[in-house]
Amino acid sequence: METGVQAVANKAEMQGIAEGWRRAGHSVGLVPTMGSLHEGHLSLVRRARAQCERVAVSVFVNPLQFGPAEDFDAYPRDEERDLMLLRKEGVDVAYLPAVGEMYPPGATTRVRVHSLDEKLEGAHRPGHFEGVATIVTKLFNAARPNRAYFGQKDAQQVALIARMTRDLDMDVEVVVLPTVRDPDGVALSSRNAYLTEDERRAARSLVGALRVANEAFGEGERDATRLRRRMVDVLAAEPLVRPDYVEVVDPATFDSPGTLAVLAARVGRTRLIDNHPLGQPL
Amino acid sequence: METGVQAVANKAEMQGIAEGWRRAGHSVGLVPTMGSLHEGHLSLVRRARAQCERVAVSVFVNPLQFGPAEDFDAYPRDEERDLMLLRKEGVDVAYLPAVGEMYPPGATTRVRVHSLDEKLEGAHRPGHFEGVATIVTKLFNAARPNRAYFGQKDAQQVALIARMTRDLDMDVEVVVLPTVRDPDGVALSSRNAYLTEDERRAARSLVGALRVANEAFGEGERDATRLRRRMVDVLAAEPLVRPDYVEVVDPATFDSPGTLAVLAARVGRTRLIDNHPLGQPL
Repeated sequence: METGVQAVANKAEMQGIAEGWRRAGHSVGLVPTMGSLHEGHLSLVRRARAQCERVAVSVFVNPLQFGPAEDFDAYPRDEERDLMLLRKEGVDVAYLPAVGEMYPPGATTRVRVHSLDEKLEGAHRPGHFEGVATIVTKLFNAARPNRAYFGQKDAQQVALIARMTRDLDMDVEVVVLPTVRDPDGVALSSRNAYLTEDERRAARSLVGALRVANEAFGEGERDATRLRRRMVDVLAAEPLVRPDYVEVVDPATFDSPGTLAVLAARVGRTRLIDNHPLGQPL
Repeated sequence: METGVQAVANKAEMQGIAEGWRRAGHSVGLVPTMGSLHEGHLSLVRRARAQCERVAVSVFVNPLQFGPAEDFDAYPRDEERDLMLLRKEGVDVAYLPAVGEMYPPGATTRVRVHSLDEKLEGAHRPGHFEGVATIVTKLFNAARPNRAYFGQKDAQQVALIARMTRDLDMDVEVVVLPTVRDPDGVALSSRNAYLTEDERRAARSLVGALRVANEAFGEGERDATRLRRRMVDVLAAEPLVRPDYVEVVDPATFDSPGTLAVLAARVGRTRLIDNHPLGQPL
C-alpha cells in the first residue's frame, strides 16, 4: 500500500496532529529512529502499522546521545530514501525536526535514569543515555503515542526507556521487537555501512560469540563467568575485533548475573553492539 | 457551588480520567499542591476553574524535594480539610497518590533543569529542584493538563517549570498567578504555621525589604547592588531574621542583574522565601 506520508519538522505541528488523532479516538504508534532506515526499523514500522490506527516515525540524529569523539557528523543520513521507505510502509507522519528545533539555545533540561545509565554502554559512552532519555521524552511529548516501538538490538536502551516510562508515569506501552539479522547473522545496524569487507567478515564473530554462549546455555551452563569466558574466547580469535565489554546480565537492571548476553566491540574503527536473550533460538 | 470531588490515589486511574476528558474535547487544568491549602492555592484553583472545563488538583507532599535535614515529616498535612476546600471550589478530581505509588522501589529516573536549578534556592536546597522537576513531570503525565497553575510566590520554581515544559516539549501552558498576602503583607505559605507570634511579626520584614526595594525602583534606582543593599539593611534590623540570600535577578534565568527581587531567610527555625517583580504595586 503506497500512500502519502506527511513530513513534519515542527514540534507544535506534530503535537497538533497527535492531539487530533487522540481526540478522534485513534490509537497512535511511534517509531523513534535516527534514520538511515534498514529492515530492523521497518520491522518496527510494520508492527506499529498493524497495531495502531495512526503511525508516526521520527527521524532525528540526536547530537545529545553522541560523545565528542563519536560519529555524529559521519552518521549516515539519507532523508529522501527514508521518506520513500516510510511512504511504502503507509506511515502517516514522518517527524523530522532540525537540531535547532529540538535544542534551542538555553535548553538545559535533561532526563536521567540513574544507575542503569552508568552501566556497560553507559560506562563506555558517558552521557549517551541521558541523551537518549531526554530525546525520547521529547518525542513522546510531541507525538503522544499509545505505543512506542524499539528494537531489542539496543537492549540497554530498551531497559532504560521501559524504566523511564514507568518511573515518570508516561502513559506509553513500550513494544520491543527482536533484532533483525543479515543472512550471515550480523545484526542490522546503520553503522555496518562503515565496515570494510574484512571488517564485515570479522563482525560475524559478535553473533558467533552469542551463538556459542546460547549453545552452552542450551546444554545447561548457567555460570555467568564461564558463559562470558566462552564469548570472550570467540572474540579474541578475531584480530580485527577489540571488545569493550562482554557480560551476561539481568535484562531489566543490567546487573550480573542474568540471562541476557550483551557485548560491544570495535571492529576496525567502528563500534558495534549485539545481544541475545539466552535460551531463545539464534 | 458545592459538588462532589472525586478522590483518586492511583496514577492509572488518574490517566484514564484525564484521557477521557481529552477525548471528550474538554480542556483540563491542573493545580499541583502539597496540600495544607490556603488562599494562595485557592486563587490558582479558581483561575483553573474559570479557564478549564475540567480541573484536577494534586495533593502530594513530595519527599524528593525535601533535603534530609528539612521538614518533610513536620510539613502540615490535613487531607480532610483540603478535600472540603476543593469540594467547595467545584474541583472535579483531587489526585492524592501515596509516596509508594509515586516512587516505587527502583524508581531512579530524575529530571533536571541544569544551571537554573543550581542558583539561589537550588544552592541552598541541593536536590530540591530535581525533586520538583521530577514530580511535576509525573503529575503532568498523569493528569495531562492543557494548563497548569503555579504561584509567583515560588518564583524560581515557576521559572524552572516554564523552562522544563519548553525544553521537553510538554504541551502544557504554565499559568502563573500573583502571590497572595495576608493583610500585614506576609506572603501566604503553609510554613507560616510554624511561626511563633514574635516570629510572625519578624516575618513582616521580608515583605518590608521587598517594599523598600520596590519604592527605590519606583524612584528610578536600577543598580542591583544598591537595591540589594537596601533589602539587606531592612532584614538586618530584625534580630529574629537570618537571610539565606537577597538578590535582584532576571526572572527567567535567575542571573543578576534583573528586575525580580528575591530573598530567603530563616525566621527562628522556619525558612521562608518571598519575591517581587520590581515596578509592580506591592
